[in-house]
Amino acid sequence: MGLRLPVVNAPMGGVAGGRLATAVAAAGGLGMIGMGSAGSVEALARELAHAAGAPGPIGIGLVDWVATARPGLLELALASAPALLSVSFGTDLSWAERARAARIRTATQIFTVDDARRAHDAGIDVLVARGLEGGGHGAPELATLPLVEAVLDAVPGPVLAAGGIGSARGVTAMLAAGASGVWLGTALAACAESLLSPGGRRAMLAAEGTDTIVTRAFDVGMELPWPHRFPARVLRNDFTARWTGHERELADDARARAELSAAAAADDPRLAPVDAGQGVGLVTAVRPVSEILGELCSAS
Amino acid sequence: MGLRLPVVNAPMGGVAGGRLATAVAAAGGLGMIGMGSAGSVEALARELAHAAGAPGPIGIGLVDWVATARPGLLELALASAPALLSVSFGTDLSWAERARAARIRTATQIFTVDDARRAHDAGIDVLVARGLEGGGHGAPELATLPLVEAVLDAVPGPVLAAGGIGSARGVTAMLAAGASGVWLGTALAACAESLLSPGGRRAMLAAEGTDTIVTRAFDVGMELPWPHRFPARVLRNDFTARWTGHERELADDARARAELSAAAAADDPRLAPVDAGQGVGLVTAVRPVSEILGELCSAS
Ligand SMILES: Cc1cc2nc3c(=O)[nH]c(=O)nc-3n(C[C@H](O)[C@H](O)[C@H](O)COP(=O)(O)O)c2cc1C
Ligand SMILES: Cc1cc2nc3c(=O)[nH]c(=O)nc-3n(C[C@H](O)[C@H](O)[C@H](O)COP(=O)(O)O)c2cc1C
Repeated sequence: MGLRLPVVNAPMGGVAGGRLATAVAAAGGLGMIGMGSAGSVEALARELAHAAGAPGPIGIGLVDWVATARPGLLELALASAPALLSVSFGTDLSWAERARAARIRTATQIFTVDDARRAHDAGIDVLVARGLEGGGHGAPELATLPLVEAVLDAVPGPVLAAGGIGSARGVTAMLAAGASGVWLGTALAACAESLLSPGGRRAMLAAEGTDTIVTRAFDVGMELPWPHRFPARVLRNDFTARWTGHERELADDARARAELSAAAAADDPRLAPVDAGQGVGLVTAVRPVSEILGELCSAS
Repeated sequence: MGLRLPVVNAPMGGVAGGRLATAVAAAGGLGMIGMGSAGSVEALARELAHAAGAPGPIGIGLVDWVATARPGLLELALASAPALLSVSFGTDLSWAERARAARIRTATQIFTVDDARRAHDAGIDVLVARGLEGGGHGAPELATLPLVEAVLDAVPGPVLAAGGIGSARGVTAMLAAGASGVWLGTALAACAESLLSPGGRRAMLAAEGTDTIVTRAFDVGMELPWPHRFPARVLRNDFTARWTGHERELADDARARAELSAAAAADDPRLAPVDAGQGVGLVTAVRPVSEILGELCSAS
């Protein structure tokens, strides 16, 4: 793709909008606009508008079940001719055929060697090998290092490494392993250009790498139909302490769910979800994308 | 230490004896003799004898609570003047002073940045940053990649990377990240020179990376006083399926424990424990150490 930096930002729903994507593209990477569980045609149109005139390639990342539930979302994504279209967290990969017909390059996140083979067989162009230490939703199976090793041995074609990459050391390591580039979430989530709320930002800056947990509690608490295979890695807080492992009870507890939604509305990270991976300990200040990527790619 | 290869084998109890250590030393790495939960003065003396005349440096690795429980074990280790003495899984690091007084270099496995700082402050020479994807006992906190990134940022001095390193890609990656070398367990556990039983070997060769689980079931089932912070990553089998998460019940079930010990005696990996990390999918044949290390270090 002729990128100056071997970096793609993860299409973080509610975090990576047009501004973040534009900043990544300006820095020489591939900027992705993310539509998460709250993704919609309106939100995508708005973020695309914010990225109009970006000085480099812009891609779009969708969540499979959201694309299925919101008619028009995939269509708008295809119609906007992104430099890369990523759809993750599904098993039906037929969207890739529609992208191919429109000559749009495709990507998807994979979590095991079997996933990688399936995605490769479906003709997906770029496999994003996402390890269990990564932030946000994902299958908590293999860690990034053994996943990348196994996937690069099993399938030909470009693989991006994702999960736990927080500094130049991680970027260099993954390129040395043979990855074509890195897909960065947590390292960019609290950047100056992100849509992350002030409360989420504060919580990320304060957290150590050991402060995350993999849980379904928020998905159940917010009644989001995430497939059980894909819990999320988030910052531990009072809500995860109370409900992780007790998701059934939570499904029956309307009051707890109402408290969660009030906390989210009030931007209170003591209860509300903040997606973050194990690299979060290296995120200690709000900085512009240009500075973060300059540092992370300084050795590559 | 003037090694030709930046490799140390993990001191795998019951697996890495004098023969494996000698083969690693002969290949140009640092060979470690491991004493696990069954470690004893007799076993250490025997394995040291098997490594007498090794054409390179030999170290010894002990488990903290085992060294405390078996009088004479640490003393024999110190008296044999190993090239490296590793004691892991403890909080009292005073053994390192005794090693220093004897001019023996020291190592310990660390799992978080806090652990690393403590070990560094205690004067430990080599920190082994062991990620949650690694085989055998360990604190399942950070994955290898984010752990190595964070530890190298936090402490000066040599760090070895451990956990999930299964091929030349992993070795190259960790050296590129800034590690001084790698500490390999799973990749060497089923080698020609290891003490692993035939049943354990068969199970390892057949397993994929996704076939492991972190559990305390075997420690409870064998009534071994492992600290709760250090469960083990093992191959999933009928025993882990039945008892992981039900360790309390197991502690009260003498019959289940007797079945486990019969299975271990019969070398039946359907019930007996086989320690393995997420790199196990890349272990597909019994090969001599020289061949494995030749391949893993081919790119470094
Ligand atoms: C705040 C945040 C939001 C995320 N939202 C999405 C999303 O909407 N769609 C998606 O495919 N992945 C999402 N992810 C996951 C990323 O695609 C990726 O797997 C992960 O960020 C990689 O690990 P890292 O966070 O350690 O860099 C999100 C991650 C974070 C941190
Ligand atoms: C079969 C096996 C036995 C192990 N026994 C010990 C041991 O007795 N003492 C110890 O400190 N670590 C032991 N370990 C853990 C290793 O020191 C190391 O943490 C781990 O092997 C690194 O991850 P890897 O297996 O993915 O290479 C063992 C590991 C394996 C695979």
